[in-house]
Amino acid sequence: MKRLLLVSTLFLTAMVSAQDLDEQIKGALSSTVQDIKTFVAIPNNSINSVDIYRNISWLTNQFKQRGFNTTTLSTSGEPLFFGSLPMEDDRPTVLFYMHFDGQPVDASKWSQEDPYGVVLKEQKEGQWKTVPWENLKGDIDMEWRIFGRSVSDDKGPIIMMLHALDLLKSNKQKIPYNVKVILDSEEERGSKPLPDAVKQYKDLLEADLMIITDGPVHPSGQPTLVYGCRGITTVNLTTYGPIKPQHSGHFGNYAPNPGMQLAQLLASMKDAQGRVTIKGYYDGIELNDDIKTILAAVPDDKGQLLARLAIKTPEKVGDNYQESLQFPSLNVRGLSSGWVGAQARTIVPDKATAAIDMRLVPESDGDRLKKLVKAHIESQGFYVTQKEPSLEERITYDKIVTFEEGSFTKAFRTDMNHRHAQWLTKVMNANFDEELVHIRIMGGTVPIAPFINALNVPAIIVPMVNPDNNQHSPDENLRIANVKYGLKAFYGILSTPIE
Amino acid sequence: MKRLLLVSTLFLTAMVSAQDLDEQIKGALSSTVQDIKTFVAIPNNSINSVDIYRNISWLTNQFKQRGFNTTTLSTSGEPLFFGSLPMEDDRPTVLFYMHFDGQPVDASKWSQEDPYGVVLKEQKEGQWKTVPWENLKGDIDMEWRIFGRSVSDDKGPIIMMLHALDLLKSNKQKIPYNVKVILDSEEERGSKPLPDAVKQYKDLLEADLMIITDGPVHPSGQPTLVYGCRGITTVNLTTYGPIKPQHSGHFGNYAPNPGMQLAQLLASMKDAQGRVTIKGYYDGIELNDDIKTILAAVPDDKGQLLARLAIKTPEKVGDNYQESLQFPSLNVRGLSSGWVGAQARTIVPDKATAAIDMRLVPESDGDRLKKLVKAHIESQGFYVTQKEPSLEERITYDKIVTFEEGSFTKAFRTDMNHRHAQWLTKVMNANFDEELVHIRIMGGTVPIAPFINALNVPAIIVPMVNPDNNQHSPDENLRIANVKYGLKAFYGILSTPIE
Repeated sequence: MKRLLLVSTLFLTAMVSAQDLDEQIKGALSSTVQDIKTFVAIPNNSINSVDIYRNISWLTNQFKQRGFNTTTLSTSGEPLFFGSLPMEDDRPTVLFYMHFDGQPVDASKWSQEDPYGVVLKEQKEGQWKTVPWENLKGDIDMEWRIFGRSVSDDKGPIIMMLHALDLLKSNKQKIPYNVKVILDSEEERGSKPLPDAVKQYKDLLEADLMIITDGPVHPSGQPTLVYGCRGITTVNLTTYGPIKPQHSGHFGNYAPNPGMQLAQLLASMKDAQGRVTIKGYYDGIELNDDIKTILAAVPDDKGQLLARLAIKTPEKVGDNYQESLQFPSLNVRGLSSGWVGAQARTIVPDKATAAIDMRLVPESDGDRLKKLVKAHIESQGFYVTQKEPSLEERITYDKIVTFEEGSFTKAFRTDMNHRHAQWLTKVMNANFDEELVHIRIMGGTVPIAPFINALNVPAIIVPMVNPDNNQHSPDENLRIANVKYGLKAFYGILSTPIE
Repeated sequence: MKRLLLVSTLFLTAMVSAQDLDEQIKGALSSTVQDIKTFVAIPNNSINSVDIYRNISWLTNQFKQRGFNTTTLSTSGEPLFFGSLPMEDDRPTVLFYMHFDGQPVDASKWSQEDPYGVVLKEQKEGQWKTVPWENLKGDIDMEWRIFGRSVSDDKGPIIMMLHALDLLKSNKQKIPYNVKVILDSEEERGSKPLPDAVKQYKDLLEADLMIITDGPVHPSGQPTLVYGCRGITTVNLTTYGPIKPQHSGHFGNYAPNPGMQLAQLLASMKDAQGRVTIKGYYDGIELNDDIKTILAAVPDDKGQLLARLAIKTPEKVGDNYQESLQFPSLNVRGLSSGWVGAQARTIVPDKATAAIDMRLVPESDGDRLKKLVKAHIESQGFYVTQKEPSLEERITYDKIVTFEEGSFTKAFRTDMNHRHAQWLTKVMNANFDEELVHIRIMGGTVPIAPFINALNVPAIIVPMVNPDNNQHSPDENLRIANVKYGLKAFYGILSTPIE
């Protein structure tokens, strides 16, 4: 607690001892969990507009009670919830992003009757046993969990923010900057209306920093900041043999085999260790010693990773897991030609297709990478076309590839040395004793990346929920210790002046 | 006709002028076609035992009328029909093989109501028009065709043989060797009982030469002898990534990709022109100048072949189509990993499979080739196992292949210089003016190859039906000119002493 006390004198405008705050937060757990239960009870699959409106109505009430001006932003899809506390011109502005929609539920796969009816549980001898709801009034075990759709992803964090605001108020703690809140209604369906909303509501959304509270903390369970995520694009490659599948007896050794052509083409793109050999693919990416140190500091458990994948050795794009995520990937996500297994037929197939996804980093623009891949395919002697080749093309070129490009989502990555990033680091370090994990960029792609890029604002993810929360799956859950963590993180963030 | 007259004086025991024989054959067309119609009317899908018995009963009657001793040979499946003319010890014996079972029919896809009700047709302005059946009594157009299941494959040839026997009898022409006939009842389902029948009925089936009358003549329409066919074996190769499909964002660049591993493995097996680069794969195959001359003499229409396949250039295993068939193939008949198209998911798949078929030639024993492929895979750094790898194996080896072997059917190839082959060549040359096409080995695999190999007898295919007969498909047909051709070929073969 030494550290918090030191920092407190520097940052807090009202003084609450670390110990007192801890007690306050413990005291707030019961009502926070109760509100999560109430909020989760409103179904939130965004294909049901009416449910989205019911959620917005509930949120409007909650934020209004806490002094927010609220509105709904109409979009090409479902409306977004927007709220802001009274603005003061001479202060920086932080935009908080969360989402209140949830993944669809298949109740038959859940251990509880109703995925929207939150259940409190504790683990005993490896089994999750229900804890009576009224037990929340007594001593609360930090290892209890609440189960229900969106408790973790992402309704829980919204309620944590609301209750952190209540604690600030009861401590007469002013928020030393302007606060805006945008709550997404279609995150689980790709947040499609979001980037356009930026154009429409530019002034409303303008901010100096965006804080995203979604997703779990690092698997180690340590406090975590995530500064970016990879983007994605896709490309399908199809090679061609005879115009119709042919008898492999009559034409094996004569009709060109599209599967072999595809294999040879793909093989030319990577070395045996999984590194892309296409010229320029990794251009612009330089991991200097500082970055390497930051990446190496992430407490990834390599043994656990390998055990999870059941592999001996990972690919060697980077020297460790975090390094591998700093590079764009080129992943064969699917292969198809003719038939295999019981359906296999003795044919020379007419075509073969590889479905590829490419995870992007800020240095690797999706269009640039696809151009490199296309040029590489041409350098391998293929004629490249965008559609199924015509008869004329088939008899003109020996090797043909149909190159179908998918759309792409850009990566985002906020400079870890940005002063707002440093501020957030200080806040987290001041509030938590455990080592803070800095994820320079995460491997996956979040749907809000285009929104972030459109806003052109530094954005940092502050995850709060437990890593084993069964996000998107049956039995989604939220650990009580992580509710406490979230209340504390929000309190710290909302009470600390931005330097 | 000059040639026939010359040969006649050498070979025929009774003298019929070529012109007279031609008239006799023309005269026999109507009754031959009538008998094909009668025979085809008995359905012959071998999954219906009763139909097989009805066919055998009809055949027994027909062969008995022509002086044959007949019997049915019981097998593990449907019985075989066997017949022989009275044997004389001091003469060579020829065993004729044909089959009377047929492919299943889907009447809805035929142009006629009943695939077993033979229809006579002629082509007018690109359309097939029905010709009244009674027109067979008048002048018969050689371009008419009869349509029905098995008219070509393979009931027609059986009737041609029967009517050639009738012509021999009416000309008092003795057959100068012993004749045995085996008629298969399960050819279209792979002739599975046949090889074992050789063990059981060895003495009965013993012969100096086997003549197989099945399949079409060369696409040029010229008289054809086929001396062999390739065998086949299969192997499935499966490579492994993470034990379960993983999120391609979180694990792209870290979890090994099984599709890329498979591509690199396959690519290492062939060069860009389709030639197998696995050491020893083509060992033992030498195409000397004599063989190359024979292969080059086959009047394949390369332009037509390329147009049919819609390709610019064939693979370069041989210098021409026939040469390519002298080598074993290594054909990727199927590829599968993850998903492609609308089902594509952003995953690193858990495995990738290639289904491979290998057409065999006499020089390339299937077991030997599979051993070479396996050794090659090992030389590429893979651990090879016969089944799905265990967890222990997954974490012990970086690259694993499951190598699943299919059964194999050997190739057969009769020496074109064998004296019986030379005899058959002389017979065909004596009876037909058109250049005889010698197919050293055909690309496909015939189900009777194991039977031939078990009998250990020189075997030659003497195809008689038109190449465009729609074998195995709706609207199977037989050209009248090919009925005439068959009668003449059988007459020549059955009347010429074996040298």
